[in-house]
Amino acid sequence: MTPEQRVAELGIILPDVPKPRWAYAPWVRSGDLVFVAGQIATEDGRVLHPGKLGREVDVEHGREAARGCAISALAVVRQAAGSLDHVARVVKLTVFVASAEGFGDQPAVANGASELLRDVFGDAGLGARSAVGVAELPLGACVEAEFVFEVRGRV
Amino acid sequence: MTPEQRVAELGIILPDVPKPRWAYAPWVRSGDLVFVAGQIATEDGRVLHPGKLGREVDVEHGREAARGCAISALAVVRQAAGSLDHVARVVKLTVFVASAEGFGDQPAVANGASELLRDVFGDAGLGARSAVGVAELPLGACVEAEFVFEVRGRV
Amino acid sequence: MTPEQRVAELGIILPDVPKPRWAYAPWVRSGDLVFVAGQIATEDGRVLHPGKLGREVDVEHGREAARGCAISALAVVRQAAGSLDHVARVVKLTVFVASAEGFGDQPAVANGASELLRDVFGDAGLGARSAVGVAELPLGACVEAEFVFEVRGRV
Repeated sequence: MTPEQRVAELGIILPDVPKPRWAYAPWVRSGDLVFVAGQIATEDGRVLHPGKLGREVDVEHGREAARGCAISALAVVRQAAGSLDHVARVVKLTVFVASAEGFGDQPAVANGASELLRDVFGDAGLGARSAVGVAELPLGACVEAEFVFEVRGRV
Repeated sequence: MTPEQRVAELGIILPDVPKPRWAYAPWVRSGDLVFVAGQIATEDGRVLHPGKLGREVDVEHGREAARGCAISALAVVRQAAGSLDHVARVVKLTVFVASAEGFGDQPAVANGASELLRDVFGDAGLGARSAVGVAELPLGACVEAEFVFEVRGRV
Repeated sequence: MTPEQRVAELGIILPDVPKPRWAYAPWVRSGDLVFVAGQIATEDGRVLHPGKLGREVDVEHGREAARGCAISALAVVRQAAGSLDHVARVVKLTVFVASAEGFGDQPAVANGASELLRDVFGDAGLGARSAVGVAELPLGACVEAEFVFEVRGRV
């Protein structure tokens, strides 16, 4: 199965890529690399699971938010590459987890993004990853994640 | 107008690139990508607007600091590329905003950097961006930003 | 002397690269760039110097942890490139320092990583660097660092 087929089989509907409200781009391609801007997870136009891990947000909800970031990134890289089937691999993801004092399980949260990418791309979905705990995220989001993909062929 | 002409028209004097006091480089070029080290904004040798957003520093001052980071990055990439006119585009910027509890307007702060880059490079200045809220920054700075540029031709 | 010889002369034994417990890769190569996942320093299977700078952990211990991150990264990039002698240069490092309120000396901590890379690779070890202070890190680590290397030739 191709990545596009896997996304369909998983029942995932990729969202529209919103035009950034500010002076940046949702993605930039340079050579075969596509850099995707930091994504936060939203639902019906609202931030999904606002708050901090270790306080308002538990690990399971944090994982859902991280998965939502990865789904948004799929929509962006599909726009960049024309199709998810033109993605050669996930290169890098950085997962910023809003963390209350003493919360140290950022990797479990980040897995929500990593596992989605593996489910879609197989071994090519296993990127180099960092997961860190930050103080605050835009709009009170509990997770923000950025991604680098390698794509094949022309845009 | 070229980027160098736009910088001049904006009345921006690019600072000297200080030699790093520690064991790192202000920039590294690999292929067509120039990775610029994290920049903080200074004025007369002192950190501009120290403190945290949502506490000592308001959004307007945070934007000024972010703009200062971008101006420092222009100085660095000019050194790397020989001229800003050899910059093909801004690829990526990551804006770390020192954030007090409850501050969620990192994107408005980061706009200080993004808008300067757009003013200098036009659409080629729109990079993929992440903006996150961190606990503390070097020397008490309120913003630190790092940049990836794509450049043309030989150094 | 080559990097492999310098590592030996420094008496550094590179650790085994653990298989990630989660759905990510310790490194990904794309073109000549090797992206290394975020590293934390461990000793005998336990996190080295857990806690935050400016509270439980002093700068000297933070430097040791940062050095440990760089040593882990050397093990990873050796696996990616076959030998440290195939590393063309350090391109980028990002050092996340768990920081208590008011701690602003992230660069001194990050030097533990930077100086090790310089000792091993000479001027080619001077990467573009960011050092930021984050709220929390996985497993209570005081430092996490990620790295981009440029390598030569085939894997």
